[in-house]
Amino acid sequence: MISLLDIRSAIANGTLSAADAVHAARKEIAERDPALGAILRTAPEAAVPEVGPLAGIAVGVKDIIDTGDMATEYGSEIYAGWRPRADAAIVARLRSLGAVPLAKTATTAFAGLDPAATVNPRDPAHTPGGSSSGSAAAVAAGLLPLALGTQTGGSVIRPAAFCGVAAIKPSFRLLPTVGVKTFSWALDTLGLFGASVADIAHALALIAERPAIEAPGPERPRLALCLQACAGSADADALAALDRAARAAERAGATVSDLVLPEPFARAWAAHPTVQDFEARQALAWEYASHRNGLPPVLRGGLDRAQDLTAADYDAARRDAHRARRQLKEMFSGFDAILTLSSVGRAPKGLGSTGDARFNRLWTLMGVPCVTVPVPGEGLPLGVQVIARFGDDGGALGIARMIEGALARA
Amino acid sequence: MISLLDIRSAIANGTLSAADAVHAARKEIAERDPALGAILRTAPEAAVPEVGPLAGIAVGVKDIIDTGDMATEYGSEIYAGWRPRADAAIVARLRSLGAVPLAKTATTAFAGLDPAATVNPRDPAHTPGGSSSGSAAAVAAGLLPLALGTQTGGSVIRPAAFCGVAAIKPSFRLLPTVGVKTFSWALDTLGLFGASVADIAHALALIAERPAIEAPGPERPRLALCLQACAGSADADALAALDRAARAAERAGATVSDLVLPEPFARAWAAHPTVQDFEARQALAWEYASHRNGLPPVLRGGLDRAQDLTAADYDAARRDAHRARRQLKEMFSGFDAILTLSSVGRAPKGLGSTGDARFNRLWTLMGVPCVTVPVPGEGLPLGVQVIARFGDDGGALGIARMIEGALARA
Repeated sequence: MISLLDIRSAIANGTLSAADAVHAARKEIAERDPALGAILRTAPEAAVPEVGPLAGIAVGVKDIIDTGDMATEYGSEIYAGWRPRADAAIVARLRSLGAVPLAKTATTAFAGLDPAATVNPRDPAHTPGGSSSGSAAAVAAGLLPLALGTQTGGSVIRPAAFCGVAAIKPSFRLLPTVGVKTFSWALDTLGLFGASVADIAHALALIAERPAIEAPGPERPRLALCLQACAGSADADALAALDRAARAAERAGATVSDLVLPEPFARAWAAHPTVQDFEARQALAWEYASHRNGLPPVLRGGLDRAQDLTAADYDAARRDAHRARRQLKEMFSGFDAILTLSSVGRAPKGLGSTGDARFNRLWTLMGVPCVTVPVPGEGLPLGVQVIARFGDDGGALGIARMIEGALARA
Repeated sequence: MISLLDIRSAIANGTLSAADAVHAARKEIAERDPALGAILRTAPEAAVPEVGPLAGIAVGVKDIIDTGDMATEYGSEIYAGWRPRADAAIVARLRSLGAVPLAKTATTAFAGLDPAATVNPRDPAHTPGGSSSGSAAAVAAGLLPLALGTQTGGSVIRPAAFCGVAAIKPSFRLLPTVGVKTFSWALDTLGLFGASVADIAHALALIAERPAIEAPGPERPRLALCLQACAGSADADALAALDRAARAAERAGATVSDLVLPEPFARAWAAHPTVQDFEARQALAWEYASHRNGLPPVLRGGLDRAQDLTAADYDAARRDAHRARRQLKEMFSGFDAILTLSSVGRAPKGLGSTGDARFNRLWTLMGVPCVTVPVPGEGLPLGVQVIARFGDDGGALGIARMIEGALARA
């Protein structure tokens, strides 16, 4: 993988120019992406900014995020060749920092569950996860040092874990979703993929204009180890990776206690699909009314079923979510972060599914920052998830960095 | 004005066809809009649905709301001739109910403060208010029975009051803003303009799929009369209209007590521009970076100043808003609705300003439903504002309807 901080150091030292760094990414994409299918298209050649705190950083932009200089197709034939007028807010922000939004990355249609054409860079017989398939794969394969994804269920954390990269789904609306195709406005959250936790912390601190995000976490963090029983059971090797991460954290100075989520969280977990689908039915109303047959089968079926949801179902689901959010806020007085699974297990074999978001969706609904840290080991990657209170993105990243370091020394 | 409920009755009685109702709106627009400047363009002639609970209702769509069959220019030369691919969610929803999104209505650029070319139908020497200038004026002039606007500060309630129509800014996100150009994602709220409170209640109940919105309010509502001292003082005739509305409500069975907003509300009121402008800077980052000279002067100046806002300013403003929202929720145990000013006074003379949103912005930030009711009298219109707790759009409308009736009998 390519480290964003390494590129920035080399540029600061004068051993690399921003233009050369971006050129190298173009070259990697041209040579290696044909076997991956992570990249849909690249930006026209243009002068590369040499100034700015992210100068030299080529960024992958999930193709549900608008770009003024590249087509944006939302993963759907309905938008074949579509050219938005404007950059999404996050893209404009990256440009203002000197970064180059270089490539559009493959997304499932409208960030739903129908797989994109991307393969897992660690084993092309396995899914890279979704819906931010191309962004996770491009970073994992070393094509790009930074990529943008979005998460409505588990679309950032899951593909990052499957591909073995670091990623953050920040606090809800820390990053603006203006110019991002909506699936569910209460859930859709922009996230970042990078080669290491330090890389994504640096990028997020700059993009969000909050330097404290990059500060170290607590020296002796109190971690709450959580199996999310309400979400079902995980694979044995995912549980083993979680245990390994917890033991490494303890050796590095953390205290680890067990957390069993009380009943309101099971209700909130169950409420997630209702919130998501009732909103998706509205957000994609034009596509459903005008182009139902152009929708891929899983999404089409989901929207078919969503027609039967009522506003009362939705309002009840939102109340369940609200109750759990309030309780979670109180619970965070007892620990600094939750340590939990990033996914059910390793990336499943086959490209017919992007895997399961059941260990992610509760936290998307809670709006809290989630970081996935790769756990080194044999075989396909596994990750563990570090979750902090709403607004404490810096805490989640600081603790994730500590665990990443402890695992590297283990 | 044209009543939505009257049209629907005539269609139900078989004395009017939906096609004729929509044709009549086209004719009014063609004949009378040239003197008003409320309408920017109309939809291509097409078959008018005769089925659906809003069949026959021609709707005005503020031109910051995407329409797949009409250009959408966001009030700005930067988007001259821009054709979105899809309908906004609210437009698709209207179509699914049988309504015809017939015309795009004039908006200030990006729903900011630089005036549109619309005049006040009650006196063309006066502003119709903004930013939903065309929607308010089109309903007031009887061109259309229903129109969509948006409010970030006071852009629904103020123009409705200035033009003498009923309007609601519903609870935050009751109506989806997918496909609406963003100014501030924490504040932008879709609203409805109509000839009477009953008209907008009927439309909102259908659009939001919540029949209870149309139910009668409490028989003897407890009203809290509020002058919003933190927002400064109002004109004498606006205060007199508010008093008249309060007395009429009392005669109709309401109890009225005085409400002085405690200190957290002054802080929240002061925090509104920070939330709005910090988000606008991000939401309009592409326009500002690529087309700064194409922005109108007030908006450009606002964005210039917004460049100096920090994330810490924004986070503090959001905390102030959150604190006031929690306190407001508790306060609503003591009354059913707040009765307050819709605007500083009547529509100011001249077309160089759209007026002042200072009696609106606190409530936009609180996310609570606000209804403006015209107060009959001599001269240019005045309105009073009825505000209920978050989610109680039906209560706000029911009480507003009671006051509207009581004022008509006075």
